[in-house]
Amino acid sequence: MKLKDVGEFGFIHRIRKGGVIRPEGVVQGIGDDASVFEPPPGHHLILTTDMLVEGVHFLEGRISMRLLGRKSLAVNLSDIAAMGGDPLDAYISLAAPPHREVEDLEALYEGLREMASSYGVNLLGGDTTRSPGPLVINVALLGKVPRGGAVLRSGARPGESLYITTRPGKAAAGLHLLLHEGRPRQDGEERLLRAHLDPVPQIQEGRFLAREGFARAMIDLSDGLVSDLAHLCAASGVGASIEEALLPVSEDLKAYAQRERLDLYSLILHGGEDYGLLFSVQRDRTEEMERRFEERFGWRPWLVGETTEETGIFLIREDGSRQSLAPEGWDHFRTSGFFKTPFSRRPGPK
Amino acid sequence: MKLKDVGEFGFIHRIRKGGVIRPEGVVQGIGDDASVFEPPPGHHLILTTDMLVEGVHFLEGRISMRLLGRKSLAVNLSDIAAMGGDPLDAYISLAAPPHREVEDLEALYEGLREMASSYGVNLLGGDTTRSPGPLVINVALLGKVPRGGAVLRSGARPGESLYITTRPGKAAAGLHLLLHEGRPRQDGEERLLRAHLDPVPQIQEGRFLAREGFARAMIDLSDGLVSDLAHLCAASGVGASIEEALLPVSEDLKAYAQRERLDLYSLILHGGEDYGLLFSVQRDRTEEMERRFEERFGWRPWLVGETTEETGIFLIREDGSRQSLAPEGWDHFRTSGFFKTPFSRRPGPK
Repeated sequence: MKLKDVGEFGFIHRIRKGGVIRPEGVVQGIGDDASVFEPPPGHHLILTTDMLVEGVHFLEGRISMRLLGRKSLAVNLSDIAAMGGDPLDAYISLAAPPHREVEDLEALYEGLREMASSYGVNLLGGDTTRSPGPLVINVALLGKVPRGGAVLRSGARPGESLYITTRPGKAAAGLHLLLHEGRPRQDGEERLLRAHLDPVPQIQEGRFLAREGFARAMIDLSDGLVSDLAHLCAASGVGASIEEALLPVSEDLKAYAQRERLDLYSLILHGGEDYGLLFSVQRDRTEEMERRFEERFGWRPWLVGETTEETGIFLIREDGSRQSLAPEGWDHFRTSGFFKTPFSRRPGPK
Repeated sequence: MKLKDVGEFGFIHRIRKGGVIRPEGVVQGIGDDASVFEPPPGHHLILTTDMLVEGVHFLEGRISMRLLGRKSLAVNLSDIAAMGGDPLDAYISLAAPPHREVEDLEALYEGLREMASSYGVNLLGGDTTRSPGPLVINVALLGKVPRGGAVLRSGARPGESLYITTRPGKAAAGLHLLLHEGRPRQDGEERLLRAHLDPVPQIQEGRFLAREGFARAMIDLSDGLVSDLAHLCAASGVGASIEEALLPVSEDLKAYAQRERLDLYSLILHGGEDYGLLFSVQRDRTEEMERRFEERFGWRPWLVGETTEETGIFLIREDGSRQSLAPEGWDHFRTSGFFKTPFSRRPGPK
């Protein structure tokens, strides 16, 4: 059945059910001019919004509508995680071509609801409209953090240790696989593909690092390690050095880069959409942070470098040489092709 | 200069300035993973979101980018007005073709900032991305209302008086003018065009009707009088009758409909985008409401009919006959042409 057959209000009626899974504080959900809710006492509120556009952030046929729904919410959840917050309510705006199947868009909402219910998020409102071109999804996500407890990008000072909560580059390799091969040939490739298609927002980890006062500055890894580090450094007025020997390398990524003759460190430093966290910790608290984090989650974040008084971002090579790093991540208006990741090939035999 | 020349972060840098005009309670505005703010004590929060798509809600070249910016925020302000709320902070997501001129998008933000500053609204965040097709603007707008004071669509009971705060149909006539003639030939047409291009959200009026307890149910006139009345009636579980003789007729609209041989009452009953308010008042408070409203604003809302126990919406003609009205307003997925308003022509001489 096509969207134009059920109509806007018919579609809203279909997706309206089951949106409120945490009724506490909700005065009015979907079905009025606006939602109405009681803000949680003792908290600051956090709000983030991200727009996903077909042909820019995803391609029809390369991601299932259910996964697209999950991912649309996940990328916003990751922003809440980077503030150390807990998500509350999501608002979904959708512009869809009228020839799209209703079942496709219901699958999109199924994915949204799945992700929402995993993180205790209400779907409280939105907008649906026709698109003469691409499918466009905008998510506005509200969260909360104990008053004064938000971790900003601007909190880092020189001499702090820099950590990441993921082995970066996997999502970029997954994207390369999706664009070049289509189907994974083995488990390792399947995991890379999943890193790209179905990212896991690190809400628990972000909240822990914020509540325990470990993270001084924090950002999520969406544009690429160097790009996001550059944002954090610019906001904090510091520089940073990253040690190549410390960068955690996923075995799946290493195998894929070798097979595809891709530059491994380019993927690690500049590949986007990993949606882990990058944060700074005062040096005298790193040991405690690592131990407590492991007690809580069963694994440790990876130390990758430190903030510096000198501005700029530098890579300390394994041979001790020092290389200036410039952001090569995604820029929506400059990138002419599809997607953000630059795929550098290793120089190889003729 | 083109967007692709300044890049995403260059553009964000350009538009970032001057967003916070009401710093109270704002912990972090644009420039982090999310905004952070202190919710106003003693209030419920209200959140609404609307997406405007080029080729569906507006046409390139038919509305200036500055007016498009104003209107994008105005339609969301109107939703806050319909709850009886005060607006607080806006979040703007923008998908723009990279060939668009930076100056165009700066004009869009100038319009947004103008409207924001008229209503004390901070621009606290958003997202910018490339679009392979139309320009798409999503606004998420947060507002507040004293705890328990939101006026919902569902509050009407049978036997209440129905009022509107605008002479409807003007925006639809303005749209017709825009699509068919392009340029207004006289002051009256200029006013119709302005009703369509630069709607005025009725925040003060909505707040007054809510705070004084006059409005039992309220909705803004965006889809058309009958459509919006149908939404209010469905939410409240009531019906309504509208008296043709009571419907306020704008002289500008009347003259235009005559000249263009358009059906006047079709424009009044079904024309969208007027962005006035439709509300119900208990009968024993109508006199007080009208008097107090006039003291406050210098004009009176128009009584147009009443809510009924019997469901359905009926028009009482001047000859006393009774006609069932069905919503003919905008349905985004069903409308195949551009824009929402059905332009019925009067039967005329051959």
